Amino acid sequence: MKFNIVTLLITAKTTAYWRRNPFAIILCVQKKYVLIGISGGTGSGKTTVAKNLRSMVPEDSVSTLSMDSYYKDFPDLPLEQRRLLNYDHPDAFDFDLLYEHLRTLTAGQCVQVPEYSFELYGRTGNYEIVCPKPVIIVEGILLFYDERIRQLFDIKIFVDTDADVRILRRIKRDVEKRGRTLDSVVKQYLETVRPMHIQFVEPTKRFADLIIPEGGKNVVAMDIIKAKIHALLMDLNERHSEEL
Amino acid sequence: MKFNIVTLLITAKTTAYWRRNPFAIILCVQKKYVLIGISGGTGSGKTTVAKNLRSMVPEDSVSTLSMDSYYKDFPDLPLEQRRLLNYDHPDAFDFDLLYEHLRTLTAGQCVQVPEYSFELYGRTGNYEIVCPKPVIIVEGILLFYDERIRQLFDIKIFVDTDADVRILRRIKRDVEKRGRTLDSVVKQYLETVRPMHIQFVEPTKRFADLIIPEGGKNVVAMDIIKAKIHALLMDLNERHSEEL
Repeated sequence: MKFNIVTLLITAKTTAYWRRNPFAIILCVQKKYVLIGISGGTGSGKTTVAKNLRSMVPEDSVSTLSMDSYYKDFPDLPLEQRRLLNYDHPDAFDFDLLYEHLRTLTAGQCVQVPEYSFELYGRTGNYEIVCPKPVIIVEGILLFYDERIRQLFDIKIFVDTDADVRILRRIKRDVEKRGRTLDSVVKQYLETVRPMHIQFVEPTKRFADLIIPEGGKNVVAMDIIKAKIHALLMDLNERHSEEL
Repeated sequence: MKFNIVTLLITAKTTAYWRRNPFAIILCVQKKYVLIGISGGTGSGKTTVAKNLRSMVPEDSVSTLSMDSYYKDFPDLPLEQRRLLNYDHPDAFDFDLLYEHLRTLTAGQCVQVPEYSFELYGRTGNYEIVCPKPVIIVEGILLFYDERIRQLFDIKIFVDTDADVRILRRIKRDVEKRGRTLDSVVKQYLETVRPMHIQFVEPTKRFADLIIPEGGKNVVAMDIIKAKIHALLMDLNERHSEEL
């Protein structure tokens, strides 16, 4: 699928297209992929939103990435020290690698995503190969923190859920799925997660195009975003057919 | 255009439709009209959002209502006293009439909307006839305050703009378009608008399905909502054809 911007802009058919869809120019010019970023605090429901959106479109048209795969690795530190690091500070993330991967994907190439283990507090050494599909969904707590990364997204969604609901979800997840004790979850929440959320995550809300309250259970919001993704996929297919 | 829910639910074609569009059931069952509510504080940009959405779809498929038309009328009070009333308190609005009008419109009938004058602080005695179109857009500061009205909306949008930007827009509007003095605008803002916003408007944000930052200038959000409205209009047309 090659894309010729000059041809596209001068054809009468296309002129009519832009007239009909003045806002589409923002999302479509020079693009073969639509990059959707989903951010929000811990337990906000952003992973559910990403999963729901993924399930609403054909499987072969969506790639998904999680910022969790881009925690920095500290293999030289002993486990006990790694456990004590602040995983909610921007310094914990390898933004350079995430940026490089998103640029590579939107250039049409596959990337090797490192596997991260929350039990080992580090990378496992395994990789997952992720290849670009027309819709690329990325989710993570500090997705809109780094300006370079922020500017890559066509649609920036912030999932906004009250802090009490979020901590309850985090407790359930960390205790039941990640085998941590209630005390350790509460301690980590009050000492790092909460202050980092207020200092770094919450302010990125203002960069969002859409704020969706209550996350994946918000079926009206899911339905609206799904309609947009379907329209984008139809546009991409239409342009693909025109180019062939 | 008659709609038979039993026929709809038992046909195989429709079953396939619901399977493809599980969320559509919320918006479409028994509906011939899609009611979109746009709320937000003074100067948030909700009127611009409503206008933009209106301009994005064929003129004959949208009706628009403003809550401003539903200020209560106090013809027996002298102008000076009417001027001093608190127009940002829920008591200033005729929610019963707005509810009745929305019910009438979604039942397929036209309504007589009273004309309100901000110079006279009251109704002019004129009316505008508004008839239902497939998409009905309503905007106002306390649109999600009354539970009966809130429950009528298929999509509830809250336009969220920082308070400093909002007051600047209000000053421009009230001084330039409504002929008020800067002093009177500032006094009214600090004495009633601001406290009423914090007490009554801001809390209704949590009832929204979507929060859009920055209002009508947020082209990505406009584009996403437009895609949903187009999809809904296509659904309505499709069902209309099936029924004929």
